[in-house]
Amino acid sequence: MFRVKWNQTGPVQEARGTGRAHKQPGAYGGQNTMKHKIGILGAGTWGMALARMLTVSGNDVTVWSALEQEIDNLSTTRVHPNLPGMTIPAEMKFTKSVEEVCTDKEILLFAVPSVFVRSTAAKARPFVPDGQIIVDVAKGIEKDTLFTMTEILADELGKEGGPKGVRLVALSGPTHAEEVAIDLPTTIVSASKDMAAARFVQTVFTNNVMRVYTNEDIKGVELSGAMKNVIALGVGISTGLGYGDNARAALITRGIAELARLGVAMGCNVHTFAGLAGIGDLIVTATSMHSRNNRAGILIGKGETPEQAVKEVGMVVEGMNALPAALELAAKYQVEMPIVQTVNAVVNKGMSAAEAVRSLMDRDPKNELPQSYEK
Amino acid sequence: MFRVKWNQTGPVQEARGTGRAHKQPGAYGGQNTMKHKIGILGAGTWGMALARMLTVSGNDVTVWSALEQEIDNLSTTRVHPNLPGMTIPAEMKFTKSVEEVCTDKEILLFAVPSVFVRSTAAKARPFVPDGQIIVDVAKGIEKDTLFTMTEILADELGKEGGPKGVRLVALSGPTHAEEVAIDLPTTIVSASKDMAAARFVQTVFTNNVMRVYTNEDIKGVELSGAMKNVIALGVGISTGLGYGDNARAALITRGIAELARLGVAMGCNVHTFAGLAGIGDLIVTATSMHSRNNRAGILIGKGETPEQAVKEVGMVVEGMNALPAALELAAKYQVEMPIVQTVNAVVNKGMSAAEAVRSLMDRDPKNELPQSYEK
Repeated sequence: MFRVKWNQTGPVQEARGTGRAHKQPGAYGGQNTMKHKIGILGAGTWGMALARMLTVSGNDVTVWSALEQEIDNLSTTRVHPNLPGMTIPAEMKFTKSVEEVCTDKEILLFAVPSVFVRSTAAKARPFVPDGQIIVDVAKGIEKDTLFTMTEILADELGKEGGPKGVRLVALSGPTHAEEVAIDLPTTIVSASKDMAAARFVQTVFTNNVMRVYTNEDIKGVELSGAMKNVIALGVGISTGLGYGDNARAALITRGIAELARLGVAMGCNVHTFAGLAGIGDLIVTATSMHSRNNRAGILIGKGETPEQAVKEVGMVVEGMNALPAALELAAKYQVEMPIVQTVNAVVNKGMSAAEAVRSLMDRDPKNELPQSYEK
Repeated sequence: MFRVKWNQTGPVQEARGTGRAHKQPGAYGGQNTMKHKIGILGAGTWGMALARMLTVSGNDVTVWSALEQEIDNLSTTRVHPNLPGMTIPAEMKFTKSVEEVCTDKEILLFAVPSVFVRSTAAKARPFVPDGQIIVDVAKGIEKDTLFTMTEILADELGKEGGPKGVRLVALSGPTHAEEVAIDLPTTIVSASKDMAAARFVQTVFTNNVMRVYTNEDIKGVELSGAMKNVIALGVGISTGLGYGDNARAALITRGIAELARLGVAMGCNVHTFAGLAGIGDLIVTATSMHSRNNRAGILIGKGETPEQAVKEVGMVVEGMNALPAALELAAKYQVEMPIVQTVNAVVNKGMSAAEAVRSLMDRDPKNELPQSYEK
């Protein structure tokens, strides 16, 4: 139990688990002292951790949730049930009106679970102004359409009665909400084809505990964020079988290599997969017991059925949900994805975990460098 | 305490810590059934773990050490003191004669600590045949010359009285010896400008528990193996300060990015750094308490001086030793290496660890993609 002086010009910060983070707006100091109006849709752990950070940075933040009871609880208790170490600043506003959260904001932040991105966009459509900067933090690929989250937003907001020319940014990286909620240092990627929008988001989200990098390859950033959970599931299976750090590092490294192979076939930049939203996010997911995918994989590796594992983890296991899209994309772009295919064989075809690992080790010998794209 | 059926066609394998791995030569089965003569110089944990694996694969293995007492102990007890879970097969031979270990071998494996590579090569020089395939597994950069390990071998064996046309291969990756010693699945890179040599080594080292990838970029493989410990030291410092998984993933990802920047300036292939000997090895080093660099960093992060930390870890901390070469290379090739420079400021210039992390977070905003080399 030790205290950390994170920033000598700012307030003393408490290390994980030693208490609640109390901060006044503007307390981070640094470059970002301008007050921006930000509307946040979604009051889960990630939305609320960012909402607090942005409020403490001196911004004018309003949070909306589709669950009215959730808004009542948060605005009264000023604590999120899954982030007990975080106090919600008095300055943070809540609303039950989707019109209010969308009106007169410099940034709209979509922080709803991936399966609710489309329905939330439909609710927001009439109220989102033309040219609005919209940031998405959900990760996933939509079934059937194979759209990324910002592609869903573009599609759904682009319908009759919606805004023209919205500016879409994906914000992704190795970011446990539990750590951002208590000001542990974090990096993240602001990705957009619209680099002016990406840089504006970089400016607004940058402070002494959050370092933001820009990246124009939004497709690569969103693809790796959605697919990394499949690899994390495979890493969990290996751990559950009793394999060690060598196998884990191998699965992480070769796993991102096959996601990169898919991404390049889809027109993404290979270096995105070696970046924070690629290997960085996969490292956090696959080496942490916070991760449901990792935990579910461990149970499967120990001999439970995938159904038992999901029941025991008790929450959505995104890696399993992402499998159909991963396989469909691999087939569509004719990319070899042995780890993804093996995880699928275990989860959906009854292959034993031990047999699965053996099939990976017994493949033909390979060169490790990509042969199909330039050095 | 569970047992693992790793290979249903091979013998049952015991998981880590459940006992000793007992195997008969030829027990791995698989592609590699030909018997090769292999000489191993060095009887440390890594040399001995590989020696056992190669013996069990059906090869004719002879191990030499400069320490005669060590040879006596190993050949008598058939156990390495730092690998208590591993039985040394009866078929493995030992010798105190450097001439014998070098004579009539298809592969010579150099497995001595990096600081002894030159002196060992000098001893072996008169006995190494022309055209010999030589594999190095030590990692490091030589002070003053800034040579990699195979560059030292080329230099020292190339002197008067030495062999002509030796074929040098570097073998590197995420490989804790403790895990290879008990047959936990592992991947590794066989790197050489001589791809026929690299592929031969791939064939000999491949079995059901070891998967070998080739890579022609030997310089990149050796550079990342030598430099990753500096980044691992930085990761340890962050952990010691109380920072979390987000910061660790950020330092690993941005750390390999700056090693890649240096490597590309030196003529290496950027993808090597995203591979097993690059990010793969760094992940193993920076997420494991096996790693001395990680442990030393944690102590420094908690407030000990670098000298105290080295004393407490009680062994060589390679990350500290690699710092001068890293800084010299960064200056020579004019590459920005903020993490390496910050670790140096903490270790050698008395900067506080907290101040160091702050200086990394307060840098100018950046784009995460490499701007100076092609996509």
